[in-house]
Amino acid sequence: MIVRPRTNLLKLFFVMRGSVVPRILPQILGFALYGAAVVAAIKLLKLDLGDAGVAPFALLGVALSVYLGFRNNAAYDRWWEARKLWGQLVFEIRNLSRAATAMISDRDELRPLLMDSLAFCHFLRGELRRVDTREAARPFIGDAIDEIHAATNRPDAAMRRMGEKIGALKRAKVLEAMDYRILDERLAAISALQAGCERIMGTPLPFAYTLLLQRTAYIFCLLLPFGLAGSAGWVTPLFTALIAYTFFGLDALSEELEDPFGMEANDLALDGLCRVCEISVFEALGETPPPMLPAENFYYS
Amino acid sequence: MIVRPRTNLLKLFFVMRGSVVPRILPQILGFALYGAAVVAAIKLLKLDLGDAGVAPFALLGVALSVYLGFRNNAAYDRWWEARKLWGQLVFEIRNLSRAATAMISDRDELRPLLMDSLAFCHFLRGELRRVDTREAARPFIGDAIDEIHAATNRPDAAMRRMGEKIGALKRAKVLEAMDYRILDERLAAISALQAGCERIMGTPLPFAYTLLLQRTAYIFCLLLPFGLAGSAGWVTPLFTALIAYTFFGLDALSEELEDPFGMEANDLALDGLCRVCEISVFEALGETPPPMLPAENFYYS
Amino acid sequence: MIVRPRTNLLKLFFVMRGSVVPRILPQILGFALYGAAVVAAIKLLKLDLGDAGVAPFALLGVALSVYLGFRNNAAYDRWWEARKLWGQLVFEIRNLSRAATAMISDRDELRPLLMDSLAFCHFLRGELRRVDTREAARPFIGDAIDEIHAATNRPDAAMRRMGEKIGALKRAKVLEAMDYRILDERLAAISALQAGCERIMGTPLPFAYTLLLQRTAYIFCLLLPFGLAGSAGWVTPLFTALIAYTFFGLDALSEELEDPFGMEANDLALDGLCRVCEISVFEALGETPPPMLPAENFYYS
Amino acid sequence: MIVRPRTNLLKLFFVMRGSVVPRILPQILGFALYGAAVVAAIKLLKLDLGDAGVAPFALLGVALSVYLGFRNNAAYDRWWEARKLWGQLVFEIRNLSRAATAMISDRDELRPLLMDSLAFCHFLRGELRRVDTREAARPFIGDAIDEIHAATNRPDAAMRRMGEKIGALKRAKVLEAMDYRILDERLAAISALQAGCERIMGTPLPFAYTLLLQRTAYIFCLLLPFGLAGSAGWVTPLFTALIAYTFFGLDALSEELEDPFGMEANDLALDGLCRVCEISVFEALGETPPPMLPAENFYYS
Amino acid sequence: MIVRPRTNLLKLFFVMRGSVVPRILPQILGFALYGAAVVAAIKLLKLDLGDAGVAPFALLGVALSVYLGFRNNAAYDRWWEARKLWGQLVFEIRNLSRAATAMISDRDELRPLLMDSLAFCHFLRGELRRVDTREAARPFIGDAIDEIHAATNRPDAAMRRMGEKIGALKRAKVLEAMDYRILDERLAAISALQAGCERIMGTPLPFAYTLLLQRTAYIFCLLLPFGLAGSAGWVTPLFTALIAYTFFGLDALSEELEDPFGMEANDLALDGLCRVCEISVFEALGETPPPMLPAENFYYS
Repeated sequence: MIVRPRTNLLKLFFVMRGSVVPRILPQILGFALYGAAVVAAIKLLKLDLGDAGVAPFALLGVALSVYLGFRNNAAYDRWWEARKLWGQLVFEIRNLSRAATAMISDRDELRPLLMDSLAFCHFLRGELRRVDTREAARPFIGDAIDEIHAATNRPDAAMRRMGEKIGALKRAKVLEAMDYRILDERLAAISALQAGCERIMGTPLPFAYTLLLQRTAYIFCLLLPFGLAGSAGWVTPLFTALIAYTFFGLDALSEELEDPFGMEANDLALDGLCRVCEISVFEALGETPPPMLPAENFYYS
Repeated sequence: MIVRPRTNLLKLFFVMRGSVVPRILPQILGFALYGAAVVAAIKLLKLDLGDAGVAPFALLGVALSVYLGFRNNAAYDRWWEARKLWGQLVFEIRNLSRAATAMISDRDELRPLLMDSLAFCHFLRGELRRVDTREAARPFIGDAIDEIHAATNRPDAAMRRMGEKIGALKRAKVLEAMDYRILDERLAAISALQAGCERIMGTPLPFAYTLLLQRTAYIFCLLLPFGLAGSAGWVTPLFTALIAYTFFGLDALSEELEDPFGMEANDLALDGLCRVCEISVFEALGETPPPMLPAENFYYS
Repeated sequence: MIVRPRTNLLKLFFVMRGSVVPRILPQILGFALYGAAVVAAIKLLKLDLGDAGVAPFALLGVALSVYLGFRNNAAYDRWWEARKLWGQLVFEIRNLSRAATAMISDRDELRPLLMDSLAFCHFLRGELRRVDTREAARPFIGDAIDEIHAATNRPDAAMRRMGEKIGALKRAKVLEAMDYRILDERLAAISALQAGCERIMGTPLPFAYTLLLQRTAYIFCLLLPFGLAGSAGWVTPLFTALIAYTFFGLDALSEELEDPFGMEANDLALDGLCRVCEISVFEALGETPPPMLPAENFYYS
Repeated sequence: MIVRPRTNLLKLFFVMRGSVVPRILPQILGFALYGAAVVAAIKLLKLDLGDAGVAPFALLGVALSVYLGFRNNAAYDRWWEARKLWGQLVFEIRNLSRAATAMISDRDELRPLLMDSLAFCHFLRGELRRVDTREAARPFIGDAIDEIHAATNRPDAAMRRMGEKIGALKRAKVLEAMDYRILDERLAAISALQAGCERIMGTPLPFAYTLLLQRTAYIFCLLLPFGLAGSAGWVTPLFTALIAYTFFGLDALSEELEDPFGMEANDLALDGLCRVCEISVFEALGETPPPMLPAENFYYS
Repeated sequence: MIVRPRTNLLKLFFVMRGSVVPRILPQILGFALYGAAVVAAIKLLKLDLGDAGVAPFALLGVALSVYLGFRNNAAYDRWWEARKLWGQLVFEIRNLSRAATAMISDRDELRPLLMDSLAFCHFLRGELRRVDTREAARPFIGDAIDEIHAATNRPDAAMRRMGEKIGALKRAKVLEAMDYRILDERLAAISALQAGCERIMGTPLPFAYTLLLQRTAYIFCLLLPFGLAGSAGWVTPLFTALIAYTFFGLDALSEELEDPFGMEANDLALDGLCRVCEISVFEALGETPPPMLPAENFYYS
């Protein structure tokens, strides 16, 4: 994720980090060249293409604006919902820490439970980013990590481990019925947001939207120079490139946000959020928390 | 449901799986031919149709963009809500497993309860897809399946079976008042999402929207060649086909998403989600879970 | 409510059930005749109306599309929220049945409570549709119906009756504190959705929206032939009628959905939903449920 | 709030109650006169203003439609949320009545608690409408009204009074722990919706939106006659007035809905909602409820 | 935050407080001058730029309206959600006061707990505005402030302090299990809204949106004079400035609302909201509350 202060006008056009321009440069340049080629061909061959102009493109634009607007909103909603789910993870971990600290006075019971919750965070991050987070989680729960790692759904296995711990504490009468319920509610809430994250990761936007949008955008940009050439002459390549920039720029950004758990410039800073959880847990235990993760060139991983 | 990696430009135009093009090809080709016929007729008969051009179509486009945008948003919301409900099912099954495992130490009481929950998932899938899932559910609860199958609302019958089980456990004092409440909350939540799924399945978008949109789109495309022919000449069929593609493509996709429980390319992967539930329950019981369902040509059933 | 399979192209233009065309036919035909009269007048009287054409109408279209889009979204949201509330009623009745069955072993205590809940459904339906549902509810609670019927707010009176029943069961120690709470939560949830339905019924969309939209649409269609006549000639009446169709069609549909509890073609099938509740309660009691209500020409009342 | 049956076409243009026309008549007439003056000046002075026509206005319309659509949606959402909050108040009062009636058998304890809740409703209404509702609340709690009236936040003071009552009942063992919790949840929910109403009342839409929208709309309408005059001639004043009507009509309506607790034609019927609460409480106590408030010329206060 | 009564027409154009005009004046004037320069250059050099006119700009407008509309909605949603979270803080503090007052009769236990909650509000305000609020919080909890100030996450530390207090009260049997649960729910809710505020503060809108929107808007306005000059002549600078005003005005406002916790004219009045909490707590304790914060030139800090 990119977090940076407002840039001034000159820099605005040269910022590359976080911009989608590098990804869509081939399309922009390609359509500029293509537009120039069309104009040249028309002028050389003295082609007569009627005088429909750009009016038919405005009709196509009706549907295209519906597509672009919809896809962008849907992708952003996925991204923002993912961020909300991780924000909930942060406060559920805090609530768990606060409640468990008040209920469980034996530190040897308390600490492993909270360490499990941190391991959960890292396993969830690993599942969502499809990376191996075993070593990141090992400091918290040691070799129990391997047992969890063997499960099909690792965060769920970490969650069950916590469930067993509080179940045992209840049977040992350390936790009263109401205490158990409070902690169980926390685990249920964390489980809910795990399922929310899995939903976003596992269910992309229907593939047909991407096809519909990209095909229409390509055809639009391929035909546009023929509509513009008659009246706009050599400005045609510029406009074609500009319109390709607006269409494919939003398309590329939507694609990035659609899967918010990746590691691209605009994706969520899951590493940083795991660290926020760690800080809350260690401060709740009265131990020295690790430092926040620093940004690298405005980028938080 | 289709889950596939990004395709390159060349493939983009030839992907058929998940695309709506095969379904709307008759309309696209039909309007192209019709457009050509109109141009030919005008040229042959030297018809004079005034010079209104495409301007009146832009006025029609105002209402049409409202229709297209609305219908697409409503259909997608139904699809995404359906997916959310099944995501909730996954975590409610997990919560039920975790809580029940902690509360019920007698495995002979625990296992049948959790198996009932898996049977519930399959009966819900069967109800929503209007298929017979008796054999899929039989491994979990054996011949009790037939009794449930006889009920008018089968998932509700499976739910009542679970309700009776935890009611009996409460009367037998296996479950304390608070334990019973926790499990009852899980069942209530599962019941809520069943009702949500039934709502989406049983209440389509008001039929009048489909009529309004399709009638307007057909009339628009039928009149368009007359407006274009004067200025665009033989490009008219191309534009008519393109605009038909954008209108009917979105229309066809909306129709597919509107009923998200079907088995078309963009519908939800209910089979896979049932399997996710199975894996969680079996892992909670410490038994070997079945493998995830593989995709077939990027398609998850 | 209309639930029907997809129609083919030919039928599409002749379907009347569920369509808004019959309601707006006067406007469509009226504007077609009016458009023809304007063209005739201009041609006969050789009027010169300047050459503004349709461009000023495009400016008016900006605001009109905002009005149409907004009103349609708001009306649909009311309709869909109403459907959600009734879906919640279904599962709250199921939850009440399941929980009460597990808690109250004396059938003479259980059955009247659940019958009250069915009476509640019918009284709610009666209140929302402004019909007398006394006879529909009588089979469930007998002559107690008349006492409830005398109350100002009948569903609320039925709800209080249930509240008194579970209060008495609690005082008689049939229900423990936690059991009482579980049932009280169910009643509170049902009460919440009753208030939601009353809100939708009693608070229409602000009247000024209807005025603003209809006045603008009428003026737009009244002026349009003057703008079109110059360039479009005798096609003017066709376009005027078409645009009237798109504006007043959406307007009529919005008006129908705005009050979702009526008995028009696109309104909610409250009779059917009451029957779904009855089936769930009777199956929970182990009694033979009544059959589902059949559709009549695709229409569910 | 205006609730009226559908009007016919003729009446449509003469309805004034609930319409925003009276409020924006100065703008409409002013722009009509101004448009006429511009046309006259151009014709008299034979000004040559180039031939840009209305095309640049279409570009301005892009941003203007975003402003109008956004502001209207935001204002309506505030209005509808306010209505939802008051709908919740109705059912929370009903829930409180039902639960308290079941729990508190001593009528001398029960009645004052429920009367306090009615006083709360009136104090909330008074706070939101900035009117003195002391006399409206006096019949319910007598002279205790003056003590509450002295507080900075009066509804909050009424709420604390209820909190003290149920706290005292708990200490007196009239309410068990679970009973207390149920009633406390009701009070917490009522407190939540009070804060929601205060949020809507105290936080208007950011002032900059109003400025941006109105400035742009005024400049648009001031320049428009110059763009239209060349082609539309003496129809210019009519179009200018019409477009002013669509812009300022929506603007005026948004402004009315933005503060939904006022007493204008389209504002919420808080008096009526307070009466609905009174009816529910008196019926729950078995006393004769007051009659519903009648509408006056379709207007509910 | 600006709260002011409706201004009249004349004042409308001169209001600066709360307006975004001062911030975007450089762009407006710059584009006016630039437009004039382009027209002058074209006229002097007799450049021939074809006759494409403004039609290609309408195509660019399609994407631009999607960008502007989306960004504005997203920014406003962040602002309004932030306001909701603080509204929830108000009522959670009230609920905590009311519940704690009823449960904890020893004033020496009660008062410090509620004072902690006020310190929490100020630390949260300090964290969100990145200001030092130690002195504002000191009157409530004295020197304990420094210990909290040393923590990485100060509001979380204040929250843990409250958690420890109610944990100790529970162990001392001052609070029963159910009482503890009620207060713990309050703390959990406050913790949830803290995490919500941190999410909004720490996760800006994806940076790529700002780039995409501003780059397109700049290029649009830079090219526009070339499209307008041919037909609009010396009116070109006026239109260019106007369109720059609508684009950059909304852009600037979105940027202000995007980070709602700042101290700019349209940001939230966190100081005032903290004071509302203080008033509720002091009135609940029966102490004299501090006065509301007055506005300064319609501005609430």
